[in-house]
Amino acid sequence: MKIINNIFEMQEFSRQYQCQNPHKKIGLVPTMGYLHEGHLSLMRTIQSSCDCLVVSIFVNPIQFNNRDDLEKYPRDIEHDIALLSGLDVDILFMPGEIDVYPKGVPEIFMDYPKLTNKLCGITRPGHFSGMLVIVHNLFQWVKPDYAIFGLKDYQQFILIKKMIADLAMPVKILSGEIIRDPDGLALSSRNVRLAPEERINALVISSTLFKIKREFKSGKNQAGYLKKILHESLHKFKLDYASVYDTDTLVEFGDNDIIKSGVAAVAVFIGEIRLIDNLIL
Amino acid sequence: MKIINNIFEMQEFSRQYQCQNPHKKIGLVPTMGYLHEGHLSLMRTIQSSCDCLVVSIFVNPIQFNNRDDLEKYPRDIEHDIALLSGLDVDILFMPGEIDVYPKGVPEIFMDYPKLTNKLCGITRPGHFSGMLVIVHNLFQWVKPDYAIFGLKDYQQFILIKKMIADLAMPVKILSGEIIRDPDGLALSSRNVRLAPEERINALVISSTLFKIKREFKSGKNQAGYLKKILHESLHKFKLDYASVYDTDTLVEFGDNDIIKSGVAAVAVFIGEIRLIDNLIL
Repeated sequence: MKIINNIFEMQEFSRQYQCQNPHKKIGLVPTMGYLHEGHLSLMRTIQSSCDCLVVSIFVNPIQFNNRDDLEKYPRDIEHDIALLSGLDVDILFMPGEIDVYPKGVPEIFMDYPKLTNKLCGITRPGHFSGMLVIVHNLFQWVKPDYAIFGLKDYQQFILIKKMIADLAMPVKILSGEIIRDPDGLALSSRNVRLAPEERINALVISSTLFKIKREFKSGKNQAGYLKKILHESLHKFKLDYASVYDTDTLVEFGDNDIIKSGVAAVAVFIGEIRLIDNLIL
Repeated sequence: MKIINNIFEMQEFSRQYQCQNPHKKIGLVPTMGYLHEGHLSLMRTIQSSCDCLVVSIFVNPIQFNNRDDLEKYPRDIEHDIALLSGLDVDILFMPGEIDVYPKGVPEIFMDYPKLTNKLCGITRPGHFSGMLVIVHNLFQWVKPDYAIFGLKDYQQFILIKKMIADLAMPVKILSGEIIRDPDGLALSSRNVRLAPEERINALVISSTLFKIKREFKSGKNQAGYLKKILHESLHKFKLDYASVYDTDTLVEFGDNDIIKSGVAAVAVFIGEIRLIDNLIL
């Protein structure tokens, strides 16, 4: 595994690779580090589609709307490198913040007004614009044929797919299933910040989603019924959102809607840690 | 001159050209057709920086906030091709609307809130987002090393330069001076829509800008004084805006500001035709 820190070097690597190997494919797994099995699963999934695997690690400051969350975001590059050594990763791309944003926070605002006025978009103003900018720019530098994103950030996944189409970016976007601990908790780099008791409390998130899915599968597909389960199960916690949404438009189902397919999505504060999870119905 | 209509063919041409000629440069002149000497001047300027000259013609529907303006936008492809034949143009890229926007109007909104809340941004909502999207996508397809834009659309020029930096696009942006008819009228494809009398009336725009520049050069550099000249000269017309702005931030100077450098910019309706012009001080 070769480590590239310099953006120009990354661009040159990809340019030369693609000129010399017109039929070979570059795959990119963008991450913010503090890797866990969820990330490794993405890497294994994309490997079947590509010949050269690039993993990027960059904690993107402009997608944190909360300074405290940015500062407390866990980092452990040495552990990340050790984990990556177990996989067949070709390039670890770790650009520095000063090189990514040489002029400071970019002024551009990239938005999908109809998709970001809901779910995480409400409590995290600017988050998705900052996320789209860094994903866009990583694609400019790495020039991947494939890139993969986990479905835990479901709204992010939808936005990236839209951006790729609207901005004519020649990247195929793959998705990775949510990876969970054996007890159901969706893996997240932020989980490390949960106290033992908080971690136990957090299990209500996945258990509620599993319950919703069981009910849905058993034919109880009225949105109001499923939303009621969500709210009753999670009422003890500071809830950001919890509902059932259209999988493409992210429009929330009305109580009387009969759901054929959808995504149950939740954002909850467990202590001071905001956790998200979802399950596709 | 080779004509390419197919986007995939354009991408492949550029990809192969760049792999086969790593030290040669592609230059792009994006246009909406109905070419005039202003466009040809851009082509001649960029030719000294590039080895392969691509001219694109695409009347971009999503940057027209006014349906009538889009429908009446002049088109004459045969005349354009005849004009281009006199220059050393390698590729004329003319993608079709259905290929550029296969899913209809893209939902993405690209904005610089501090730069688009003024000048043309006020009366043309959505214009700059649509413009940035098509420029971005033309850059994705043509992959130019250089691109050139005329300074008549000064706000557009500033926005494109910002986008290139913020979205890590490997394109150098050149500017082309405003080209004028001998009587001073800035060339514009829309000028053809002016009735003879309107064309004479329109001369007040450039003559006022020239007057401002003379006054400025003679040391009369108080913003209020220059703005007063603008408004007095243009008071007979339906004015969109007319003032003096910072060349980088586009912030309008206050009446008491002493101007060291700036841009005097004007948008005026002559009959139903909206004309813009500017002069850098």
